[in-house]
Amino acid sequence: MKYTFNPQKRVLMGPGPSDAHPRVLKAMATPLIGHLDPQFVQMMDEVKDMVQQTLLTKNELTFVVSAPGSAGMETCLVNLLEPGDECIICINGVFGGRMADIAERCGAKVHKITTSWGQVTSTEQVKEALKACPNPKLLATVHAETSTGALQPLKEISDLIHDAGGLLVVDAVTSWCGVPLKVDEWGIDAIYSGTQKNLSAPPGLSPVSFSPRAVKVLENRKTKVQSWFLDLNLVKNYWAGAKRAYHHTAPVSSVYALHEALSIVLEEGLEKRWERHQNVHNYLKSELEKLGFTYLVDEENRLPNLNAVYLPETVKNEAALRSTLLNDYNIEVGGGLGDFAGKIWRIGIMGESCTKNHVNMLIGALKELL
Amino acid sequence: MKYTFNPQKRVLMGPGPSDAHPRVLKAMATPLIGHLDPQFVQMMDEVKDMVQQTLLTKNELTFVVSAPGSAGMETCLVNLLEPGDECIICINGVFGGRMADIAERCGAKVHKITTSWGQVTSTEQVKEALKACPNPKLLATVHAETSTGALQPLKEISDLIHDAGGLLVVDAVTSWCGVPLKVDEWGIDAIYSGTQKNLSAPPGLSPVSFSPRAVKVLENRKTKVQSWFLDLNLVKNYWAGAKRAYHHTAPVSSVYALHEALSIVLEEGLEKRWERHQNVHNYLKSELEKLGFTYLVDEENRLPNLNAVYLPETVKNEAALRSTLLNDYNIEVGGGLGDFAGKIWRIGIMGESCTKNHVNMLIGALKELL
Repeated sequence: MKYTFNPQKRVLMGPGPSDAHPRVLKAMATPLIGHLDPQFVQMMDEVKDMVQQTLLTKNELTFVVSAPGSAGMETCLVNLLEPGDECIICINGVFGGRMADIAERCGAKVHKITTSWGQVTSTEQVKEALKACPNPKLLATVHAETSTGALQPLKEISDLIHDAGGLLVVDAVTSWCGVPLKVDEWGIDAIYSGTQKNLSAPPGLSPVSFSPRAVKVLENRKTKVQSWFLDLNLVKNYWAGAKRAYHHTAPVSSVYALHEALSIVLEEGLEKRWERHQNVHNYLKSELEKLGFTYLVDEENRLPNLNAVYLPETVKNEAALRSTLLNDYNIEVGGGLGDFAGKIWRIGIMGESCTKNHVNMLIGALKELL
Repeated sequence: MKYTFNPQKRVLMGPGPSDAHPRVLKAMATPLIGHLDPQFVQMMDEVKDMVQQTLLTKNELTFVVSAPGSAGMETCLVNLLEPGDECIICINGVFGGRMADIAERCGAKVHKITTSWGQVTSTEQVKEALKACPNPKLLATVHAETSTGALQPLKEISDLIHDAGGLLVVDAVTSWCGVPLKVDEWGIDAIYSGTQKNLSAPPGLSPVSFSPRAVKVLENRKTKVQSWFLDLNLVKNYWAGAKRAYHHTAPVSSVYALHEALSIVLEEGLEKRWERHQNVHNYLKSELEKLGFTYLVDEENRLPNLNAVYLPETVKNEAALRSTLLNDYNIEVGGGLGDFAGKIWRIGIMGESCTKNHVNMLIGALKELL
């Protein structure tokens, strides 16, 4: 049995991946070089520099996990938590729940702040949680909840957890390079993201950064990190060590793509990129509302690049409509997760998929179909 | 600061990655589609089928971990081991040692069979270990030790561990698609490999396969798997479940490349590919020996595709010679690891790098340099 693979060209407007820039695709086709080649090592330094620039951080321990964003999440938690540690985790969607699951697998005692999906965690809730858990090792929260399209304000929560002597851990998978995110200014201690959303590189890598405060926690661990693959004591010798000690074989081509995608972000300018996501969101929003879509999240905490919307009441079968969009127009949008399955759509306008042309393709198709 | 990346073309003859086929590089440049797109899901099924064919297994639980080979190693061990379990691990190089490290992080009691680097584990050693540990949960061994170039015979060890009621776990990172490897015939219960050696796809993914016996162990676990990212109870619903439940975002482009590379292997034919590696090895060996190189591993257990050799005595600084090869000829070979650092070279002839032309480039350069 012989297989060939020549997929239909898609227009990616779901929760990720987004369309990749042709320059990024071209970078992927660059012939391989070794993961310890001086040329590769220099390129890794450039990637680190560009990750720092786009996260607005000077954190020395900034590097890239050789696996998707979920592994970046696990990297942050398994390195900072030890059995018996107490932590606070904010849950207002799938990814907060995933963080709690991982923290429990680390043997930590997890205090959950549970908020309705589509809402954000309030400072009052955090204060309340700190009463029940006055000395948490860390508080973890999702900046941009991909399952609901809610954008979590971070600065006040950061002050609260630091006053309690703990670290702030942030999931920035859907916020990095798409909406304002200021790691040093906001006092974020450990942050992870992914390459496949606003960055528009292929999925598969997870940039991670640890503050000096978080590094100190790492250095004072009493137990071994439970994951060998994600143990920063080992990984950092490859990404940051003077000797570039072999740890694992880096996904060479994916790092090429990340390098090119980061270059494109910096050529556009980080703030201009944030503005573009906001402007295209405003256009998409007005067009969707004309068609009878309504937003799940209040305007105040609404993520511009991931639009979680209820469908017009005339639509009885959202899955069938999504299939038609995919099959007849090659446009991918996402369905809802959890309780929102069958009820909402998640429309991504991220990175290269964040253009008025993308909005016009989607709206034009919907006008025909509705 | 603006970065561009246009690396020198290298000839990859180290321990990995190897040169990628132009068809594989082209596949990497295919525009992205969603990881839940029906086109992608069908392609995953084809990848699974081709991984089964190349591993010579019918194992239903055959899939691809979204991270490099080391994560495949961790996947096998964290899913099969629980705290307090006893296991036997054969160590005759870096990668056996890594397995022991991971097993200890799982809370297992590890009985190590330690053999000099360059040797293989004997059946007598296994029988001895089984006296000290008569009911091991598993025995883990490396089929092809990338740090030494030793090829471990597996069939007799397989019988011994099965007679003791345990599972056989095998590292096939450097053997898969390069030397004979017969998962079902040899009774291997859990196996992992990587995409970047004899397969000649870019590094970053790890094919894994579990026998029905290993699946039963999975199903009877008393504790949660300590890694969320690698928990097969969750991963299998994406790779094998009828509903293709979202777990993490798959590295779409890397799976494209794996699909194309597997197609190339099957077009060549698995046995012909094994023969090619043996034939090119014979040619390389005779040329290296003429130049005064000598092999670390006895002929009987010598891996054909990863040649660990002592340098001629006239070479006083192997690192300088390797640098010259890289800088002046763009040829990458690997140095030694651990006690062999500075003492041996590891010359890979794997996948697309396994041709007489590659050998002639290397030997021609060495003749000029020595």
